[in-house]
Order: sequence, then structure tokens, then C-alpha cells
Amino acid sequence: MECSPKSLANMTLLLASKTFAIPEPLPLDSGQVLEAAEIAYETYGELNADRSNAILLCHALTGDQYVASNHPITGKPGWWERMVGPGKPIDTDRFHVICANVIGSCMGSTGPASIGPDGQPYGMRFPVITIRDMMRGIVALLDGLGIEKLHTVVGGSMGGMQALSLAANWPERAERVLVLASTARHSAQNIAFHELGRQAIMADPNWADGAYYGGDAKPDNGLAVARMAAHITYLSEEGLTEKFGRRLQDRDSKSFGFEADFQVESYLRYQGSGFTQRFDANSYLYITRAMDYFDLAEEHGGKLADAFAGTSARFCLVSFDTDWLYPTAESRHVVHALNATSAKVSFVELSASAGHDSFLLPHDQLDRVVRGFVE
Amino acid sequence: MECSPKSLANMTLLLASKTFAIPEPLPLDSGQVLEAAEIAYETYGELNADRSNAILLCHALTGDQYVASNHPITGKPGWWERMVGPGKPIDTDRFHVICANVIGSCMGSTGPASIGPDGQPYGMRFPVITIRDMMRGIVALLDGLGIEKLHTVVGGSMGGMQALSLAANWPERAERVLVLASTARHSAQNIAFHELGRQAIMADPNWADGAYYGGDAKPDNGLAVARMAAHITYLSEEGLTEKFGRRLQDRDSKSFGFEADFQVESYLRYQGSGFTQRFDANSYLYITRAMDYFDLAEEHGGKLADAFAGTSARFCLVSFDTDWLYPTAESRHVVHALNATSAKVSFVELSASAGHDSFLLPHDQLDRVVRGFVE
Repeated sequence: MECSPKSLANMTLLLASKTFAIPEPLPLDSGQVLEAAEIAYETYGELNADRSNAILLCHALTGDQYVASNHPITGKPGWWERMVGPGKPIDTDRFHVICANVIGSCMGSTGPASIGPDGQPYGMRFPVITIRDMMRGIVALLDGLGIEKLHTVVGGSMGGMQALSLAANWPERAERVLVLASTARHSAQNIAFHELGRQAIMADPNWADGAYYGGDAKPDNGLAVARMAAHITYLSEEGLTEKFGRRLQDRDSKSFGFEADFQVESYLRYQGSGFTQRFDANSYLYITRAMDYFDLAEEHGGKLADAFAGTSARFCLVSFDTDWLYPTAESRHVVHALNATSAKVSFVELSASAGHDSFLLPHDQLDRVVRGFVE
Repeated sequence: MECSPKSLANMTLLLASKTFAIPEPLPLDSGQVLEAAEIAYETYGELNADRSNAILLCHALTGDQYVASNHPITGKPGWWERMVGPGKPIDTDRFHVICANVIGSCMGSTGPASIGPDGQPYGMRFPVITIRDMMRGIVALLDGLGIEKLHTVVGGSMGGMQALSLAANWPERAERVLVLASTARHSAQNIAFHELGRQAIMADPNWADGAYYGGDAKPDNGLAVARMAAHITYLSEEGLTEKFGRRLQDRDSKSFGFEADFQVESYLRYQGSGFTQRFDANSYLYITRAMDYFDLAEEHGGKLADAFAGTSARFCLVSFDTDWLYPTAESRHVVHALNATSAKVSFVELSASAGHDSFLLPHDQLDRVVRGFVE
């Protein structure tokens, strides 16, 4: 499906199958407030009578609420269909699964592409948000849905940051906290890759200081480059070598030109251009900024253990040995903080060749860990 | 110094302190030939009477011939002043050091910014070159200088690829081969980062299919993004954390905006914008392509050992433990191939926190290795 900026702006209003209007202005870490914010969300499975079987799934940077149902733009299956569904590790025959698009994103929740109070798209007038602000929006949704306590909050990558933020800031809201391939802080290297992506977007003349909605062109080139950079970090060196090596794409010998000779070039170009069909460049700026700002220890006086003081939740952290975006050491760092505050925590490093992306890919051991933890 | 595209085109003709005109058309791996190619080079120290004390230094991707003398555009000291000079590990009181700008580059040797046979800058009409083609140019220079056999060929990163290419393709031309932080092939991940940089350049409207010379604007934004991506790969995660961590730049708290809040962001922006003053975007395309095409085994029938069959040179390979661009395993791979063909080879992995860039930075052990090897 081709998406002009106009249809992108409309899309954010039309596509969400369920929308919750946050009744109060949403206070933000910046000191600003977000007026009349909406949260788009999906649910799978039935909520039980005592509202005790709700699992909140938190999506990653470019993810969305379409966990186990087709994506309305791409038509592709939901991003975690293998994990969520009847009889699956997160079993929708037993659990009521909720996934909300984060504020700042572009799949129906209020973000930079949304219409602001003056009737114009926010663009860069949208306030800079944090991971905690995203959770403020989602907690408001849970309030609206009458869900006092989650059976489990689950998230991978940025979703894991959200799960940790919920555990730290609303400790009474989740019994179990499952964090996959994530971190409690963004490292200098993490920030560097995001800054690279942001600079690529902002360097695109079509970005136009973020005021491209309703125009004829979007900053697709810049966004595609940003996506390519991110994709490199999602895969391991080993995974890239396994998947592509130095194999040529649709040719027997090098072209001695600048076409995509190598399969890995072709793959990256495809990932970059495909992404621009479904994602808004300004949302990419805002969400990467929120991730870069994330430092749960700093939020709680500088000591990570203090973020979890007095928690009664059970935690499970999972890392992947080839994940160099949020390496195992980052999960260990969280585990040590939880240990220091005597929280109930289990931790496993799984072996997988795919790097950071492993949490989204078939992995029997991961399935067993998830199934076991949410029992 | 501000460089307009016009001055950049002139610069490539004017700045080289010594220039050698290759007398014959230069045959290329693509099957094309480069007519009337010129090689710009610098020398340090005196050539002795029997021409036996010449050391060839091969520069890296964005390097140049100004090894131990000020860069004519930036005014900064040469890129390896700490290693090359009187009494230094590569001692110009004893050795005649030669460093040539590679063809395809932009510091005086023939490249895409040079004027082609039709009186216009080549731009993208410049032929795609390989590492071996670069060495064809430099071997022509050595012929012109009457240097039959080098005391040593030395190179780090892409310079190491060139040193290996010389050893494999002109085995009689060097007695010693010193290869730092390099590889005999570009991996899928290496290619991916370069492709990202190329796409960033080509996405810049000012790139104009490479025909920006003489115009009012260069693809500086794209080139800066490419440089930022490369810089991330030159530093280790550990090095970035040591150097920047999550420290803020010139402010006490986050701005909740998109300025460079973090030091690492400020550093990357500075590296990106500074680079555009001294480097040509098309050269960046061509040289990265040459590196991506590099696979010394493939060039020699698929087996790396065959590339070095019958060599009588002494080899030394040095890797750095935090270099994730060309990790130690890549040096080991070369060492194994050399062992398989019974070549004389020594190998050391040095410990350094700075990642790939370590070969350019102060390192006492590296100095001892280099000094010892060229004795």
C-alpha cells in the first residue's frame, strides 16, 4: 500500500480498532502536559470476571498494537503471533492480552502526526516524551479498562524498558514483570546509533523541520537510512554472516557499479524502503529520543536498586548471547539491582545467532521460559 | 577552511606536494583502464644509495599521504605523526617513508573529482576500482621511483588490505608486511555499514547522481551521516562509554528537545560536519565499494593460503581486542592462511579500549611491535 503524507495523517486516525480517550491532561516528565491524548490498543482473549488475567504487552520502537492480528497497512501477521494466541506461550484461551500503541507513535495513539489543539498536526510541536510518559498513557488506559493489577507485564527491547518503568513507578500494577533483550539505560553506543538515525531524517530536505504532513513528500530517504542503521544493530555479526555472508544478489559476478551487488545490501535497501510505508519519521525522532533519555537509575536518585525498593512483583529477565544492542551485561545489571532489593527474580541468557531480533524469532527455549513464567 | 565544490575540485589538483604521472594506462579489475592517472604522494627521510630502506605506508579509507606533515586543508598534524618521524618507531632517520594517496581518493591522486579525458570531472563516470587497483597505481609509482623492493609495507585498516594485496599480487616487492587492525575480506556487517553510508550520500539531493562538482552545493549532509555511521564502528562500546557515557554536553539537565544533549551526540555531529570540509562524497562511495569488494581468497581461487603461496616475506599481524570492525578473528584467519603456506608470520592481539581506532592512538606496546618488526 502506498502512503502519501496525507494518507499517513488520516491513517493514524482511522486504523486503530479500539481507542481510549485519556480523560485528564497527561502530565509529562518535561513539565508539559498532553491534552486530549488518545491511546489506540488491541486486545486478545477474554478478561475474566475478577479482572485478574490481564497481560500487558509493551511494543518495541517501531512496533504497534497489532501483536497477533494482521497489520492494517502491510497486511502482514502480527509481530508476535508465534508467542500470543490460543494455546501459545501467552495463551489467549486463558489470558486477556492488551497491547497499546505508545504515545509518540503513529498507529492511532496521539503522536507528532496527530492533530493538535489548534487543528494542525503537531509535527515538532509535539512535546518530547519519555518511557515513563508512555507508561503514564498506558496506566491511564488500564484505569479506564478497570484493570487494577496486571497478571503480567511483558516487553522486549523498548517494551522491556516500559515493563521496568511500570514496575519501578507503579509497583502495585503488575504481579509479574517479564523483560526480554532490554536494558535499564541507554548506553553511549545506543544513543550514537539513534542520533545517527535522527540526523539522517533531519538531513532530508523533505523533513522540513517536521512540517511535512499534508504535503507532497515525506522524508522517506532519511527515514530509510535511519531504519538501515537500526537494522544493522538488530542483527549479530554472526547472524549477518550466516544469513548473507558475501553472497551476491541475483548475479554471478560483481557489477563494478553501485547497484546492490551483495545480498546484505539488497536486504537493507528493502528494509529501509519498506519501513517508510508504515512509519512516521517524526515518531521515529520522538521515540528514539525517549529511549535515549531512559535511565531508570537516574530517575530514582542514581541507584537502580532504589527504583525497585519494596516491589513485590516477580521478575524474569531474558537476554540473548549475540545481542550487542542490549547485551547480557545490561540484563545482569538489572538482576543485580533486583537482588540488592531482595526482589524475586530469575534470569536466563539464551543462545541464538540472530542478535537482538532473537526475541521476535522462533526459539523453543524462549517459548518455554515465557510459558513457564506466566503460568 | 571552507570548501566549496569548486575549491574541492581545484584542491585535488593543487595540494599534492609531489605527483607522479603513471606513464601507461592503468588496467583495472573491472576490465576498464584508467588513462593518464596521477598519484599524489609524500616522502619522509632519505632513500639510501642501494634503495633498500624504503617503507611504504598505506592509508585508511579517509586517510591520505600526509602521514607526518600537516594536512593542507585542516592544518592538523599528520595522521601518524606519533609513529613516523626521526627516532620514532618508523624512524625517518633510517628509513625512506613513502605514502601515496590511493586512486579514487581526493587528495591529489586521480579520483571521481578529477578531470576526465573530456575535460569534465569524472563524477560517477569514474570506474569502480578495487584494493588491487589501488595497489596497481602504487606499484607504478614505486616503479617510477626506481624502488624494486620495499623494506616494509605497512598499513592499518584499509591500509592493511593494501599491504596484504601487495604481498599476494606482487610478492617480490616487499620484504616485510605489517598489517594492523585489518582483514582479508569484508564481512556482511562491514558491507552493511558501508552500504548505509553510501545510501545516506545518495539520498542527499545535493549528490545529484555525483555531478555536483562546480555547483553551489555538495552532498554534505549525506556525507556527514555516512561519517557518523563509520565513526560508531571505529570506537568500541567500552571506549564510547569511557569517553562519553551518558554525560550531557554543556548543560545540567536534558533539554527535552532535539539538540545534542549528550556528549556522544555532539561528538558525532562534530565528526560528521568536520569531515565534509576535507573529503569528497564520491570518493567515499568509490573507496567503500573497493573495500566491500575486497576478498583476497576469492581473488586467488577461493583459498586464502593460495594467495600467499611461495611468499618469502615476513609478516606481522596486529589486532586489538576491542576492535569489532575487524575483530581479532579476522587477523587470525590471515595468520592461519600464512601458516598453511609456511610463511614467516608473527601475530599479536593488543589490549586497548578504543576499538578499531586503537592503531592510530598512543599505545606503547604497538610502538614496540612496529619498531621491532621494522628493525
